[in-house]
Amino acid sequence: MSKNQNILIIGAGLCGSLLALRLAQHGFNITLVEKRPDLRKVTLDAGRSINLALSDRGLRGLRLAGVEEAAKELLIPMTGRMIHEKSGKTFLSPYSGRKDEYINSVSRPGLNMLLLNEAEKMPNLKIIFNQTCKEVNYETPSATFEDFESGDETTYKADVIFGTDGAGSAVRASMINDKDFLLNISQQWLGHGYKELEIPATENNGYRTYKNALHIWPRGEDMLIALPNLNGSFTVTLFLPYKDSDYCFENLTTPQKVEEYFKKEFPDVLELIPNLTEVFFNNPVGAMGTVKCDPWHRFGKILLMGDAAHAMVPFYGQGMNASFEDVAVFDEVLNQYKDNLLSGKTSWETIFDDYEKVRKKDADAIGELAVDNFDEMKAHTGMELFQKKRKLETAFETEFPEEYYSKYSLVTFNESIPYSEAKKRGRAQDKAILGLLHDGKLPETMPLKEKLEAVKTQTEVILNANEKADYLKY
Amino acid sequence: MSKNQNILIIGAGLCGSLLALRLAQHGFNITLVEKRPDLRKVTLDAGRSINLALSDRGLRGLRLAGVEEAAKELLIPMTGRMIHEKSGKTFLSPYSGRKDEYINSVSRPGLNMLLLNEAEKMPNLKIIFNQTCKEVNYETPSATFEDFESGDETTYKADVIFGTDGAGSAVRASMINDKDFLLNISQQWLGHGYKELEIPATENNGYRTYKNALHIWPRGEDMLIALPNLNGSFTVTLFLPYKDSDYCFENLTTPQKVEEYFKKEFPDVLELIPNLTEVFFNNPVGAMGTVKCDPWHRFGKILLMGDAAHAMVPFYGQGMNASFEDVAVFDEVLNQYKDNLLSGKTSWETIFDDYEKVRKKDADAIGELAVDNFDEMKAHTGMELFQKKRKLETAFETEFPEEYYSKYSLVTFNESIPYSEAKKRGRAQDKAILGLLHDGKLPETMPLKEKLEAVKTQTEVILNANEKADYLKY
Repeated sequence: MSKNQNILIIGAGLCGSLLALRLAQHGFNITLVEKRPDLRKVTLDAGRSINLALSDRGLRGLRLAGVEEAAKELLIPMTGRMIHEKSGKTFLSPYSGRKDEYINSVSRPGLNMLLLNEAEKMPNLKIIFNQTCKEVNYETPSATFEDFESGDETTYKADVIFGTDGAGSAVRASMINDKDFLLNISQQWLGHGYKELEIPATENNGYRTYKNALHIWPRGEDMLIALPNLNGSFTVTLFLPYKDSDYCFENLTTPQKVEEYFKKEFPDVLELIPNLTEVFFNNPVGAMGTVKCDPWHRFGKILLMGDAAHAMVPFYGQGMNASFEDVAVFDEVLNQYKDNLLSGKTSWETIFDDYEKVRKKDADAIGELAVDNFDEMKAHTGMELFQKKRKLETAFETEFPEEYYSKYSLVTFNESIPYSEAKKRGRAQDKAILGLLHDGKLPETMPLKEKLEAVKTQTEVILNANEKADYLKY
Repeated sequence: MSKNQNILIIGAGLCGSLLALRLAQHGFNITLVEKRPDLRKVTLDAGRSINLALSDRGLRGLRLAGVEEAAKELLIPMTGRMIHEKSGKTFLSPYSGRKDEYINSVSRPGLNMLLLNEAEKMPNLKIIFNQTCKEVNYETPSATFEDFESGDETTYKADVIFGTDGAGSAVRASMINDKDFLLNISQQWLGHGYKELEIPATENNGYRTYKNALHIWPRGEDMLIALPNLNGSFTVTLFLPYKDSDYCFENLTTPQKVEEYFKKEFPDVLELIPNLTEVFFNNPVGAMGTVKCDPWHRFGKILLMGDAAHAMVPFYGQGMNASFEDVAVFDEVLNQYKDNLLSGKTSWETIFDDYEKVRKKDADAIGELAVDNFDEMKAHTGMELFQKKRKLETAFETEFPEEYYSKYSLVTFNESIPYSEAKKRGRAQDKAILGLLHDGKLPETMPLKEKLEAVKTQTEVILNANEKADYLKY
């Protein structure tokens, strides 16, 4: 290994930790710098999303680094959406008709700790906490950090730098401000914010509601969700417009108003959260947005990855999964070129270019799907036509498991299909089923196999029409 | 007039100067602060676009402030595009078949000086130069400036602030960085840069090539253009890819290479620019991009206008015109509410909201049209099918001046039609004509009137199809 191959990774969250571990396994010398304290020693995550949904694409990345089995001990399977109607009635809408297709609730800090522990075992990997990135020098390349406690500044040089410092990336900000580099950037915020709450465990660490589901209270514009934790509690998240709504963050300003709102919209939750208003006013309101940018790398010296490159709203549960898949896709590209890189025949620039070429369209696609899924979760899951569609899709997947994959399944459980393909096919399928159901062309009496054929045929018609429209676009 | 109505305008370029003048005419107390020195005393514009194309929408804004007639003395009419082929052959492609439809070359600093002079005549308007905006406080609201010479900081308070500080707006940057305000932002750069050159006047201040046209040397990916100045010179702009091209800014690094390039692509220009390589290496390469953002105003306290709100690439010659039209559209909204504003019944927030509602879609539309027009100018103008289209459109406009308006005419000469409408109709028309010509459905022998009817019918078909597509979009 050439002594030149020193890599600086900025940001030791989920993406940065896995990337550091994997690149250390390749034999590179890694310096991993994190702004915040070591989360194995200090708890800081109050009010941030503390559990996430891990699914196949994320597991692929963990598998690659040999930590899938260790991670599995942290997981709680969620086999479907538990829909809570206003009346208190609930029903489970499975994520798939195939038994082995489910998502998993996992603690963000728990998984991050596991990755940091594994990373730290590597002799060629050093982790530094409490240092904020102040400046990136693209020529050297190097980055300068300020120590949170001492205020001292340190500069780390490397052959290449990876920016894995999340949605509010300081590395990306330095690229935006660099006048010699024209970074295309788009940052679009939702008109909804979120606030975290908690359903505590019972006295003997039991679950106060069904454990193995992602709970949703769809209310049109508002939505509450809950994901289980290993200790018996559920992390609850309220999604609500900032303003211009009967109930919104702007006007939920008193305990009375908050209780009134929950009584009206989520009466069953009120019983599950004993100290609702206290937690409500202690926790901050978080913002959610979609960030797209390109190019992801600056002249082969520094590469953005994970949320720093493509932050998305949380509604497909794919932010972490996409970041872990980034690491896996990067690994594939790196493997193609590694020998030539080490012998000096190939530059990092070629590798970064290729990675971006392969990956960018898929990052764009999941960013768009995640926005769509907000409408699906907060509104469609409560609608009859949509519920009919989901029942039909589940029946297809149960009876003809090799022949039908819903959009959700394509995105979530089919790591061999890129996000961009899943988006194209999944949207056409949705349009086909909803159209056929709406037009009464899938009557109850029709055999399931015939329904499947009708959906397939109509999906192809739509895919063809879309291709033509793309081609004819002036 | 309530003493509360103090307005701070940041940026005294074309948009800010006109806005300041117009709002002073309304009776408000205006403080206009500009980062750069007074351009009436210091010349600073080397290498920036020093002449621009003024057309109907821009004239509307000037008329409103009573400065149209004074401005007209600065104008040189350009009746069409003078296309220069590689062979040296030239031909004029008129902008319209109607005699009174032409655009005008105008000096940017000349027009800016005129506006500053007019503004300064107002007793309720104060202009401050050499002060850079360092910080905006949205609560007060106020803004703090640093004096370029003394380094002293000054804070100006106002009832509302307007940010008219151009494409690289410091006011917009402060909105982006404000964590309590979620500004949606998109910034997309072209892969082409530009460099300014000059065709000097003859010894007795004559023009070395045809005066009353916008000259274009279309070369597919590259393009050279020239606009006349009052002193007999032409300002020339070269548009060229940054990299990955036989000739690009990255590899035009020696006088020999520059001369070789001009000899090959623009031999007739080489004769008109005596000191080509000297000027080439003295002038910087400029970048061009499209900026979209929203909301344009922060809680009714500060409003972005002109390039600060919607920077666009220069290829429709509409950047300045759109900014002046901003002032006119804002004036219309203000007039509706002015009495209620002064009596305290209406807030600035209502006015800003209304203005954005009316104007945003049009700013988006011209931003998109400007990018399209780059392809039209650098490539299509040199193509036979496009030239046939332009000839046919000119014939329609000459023979049936009340019945046909090309996209260019809708955008440039029809101030009563919003940009968004001009875009919709203009694109459909282009698609219709190009399709009919391509399919041989407008044979030479067909009477012109029949051709017009065929184009109109096909345009309606396309507009209807587009409406359906929008409606059915899933």
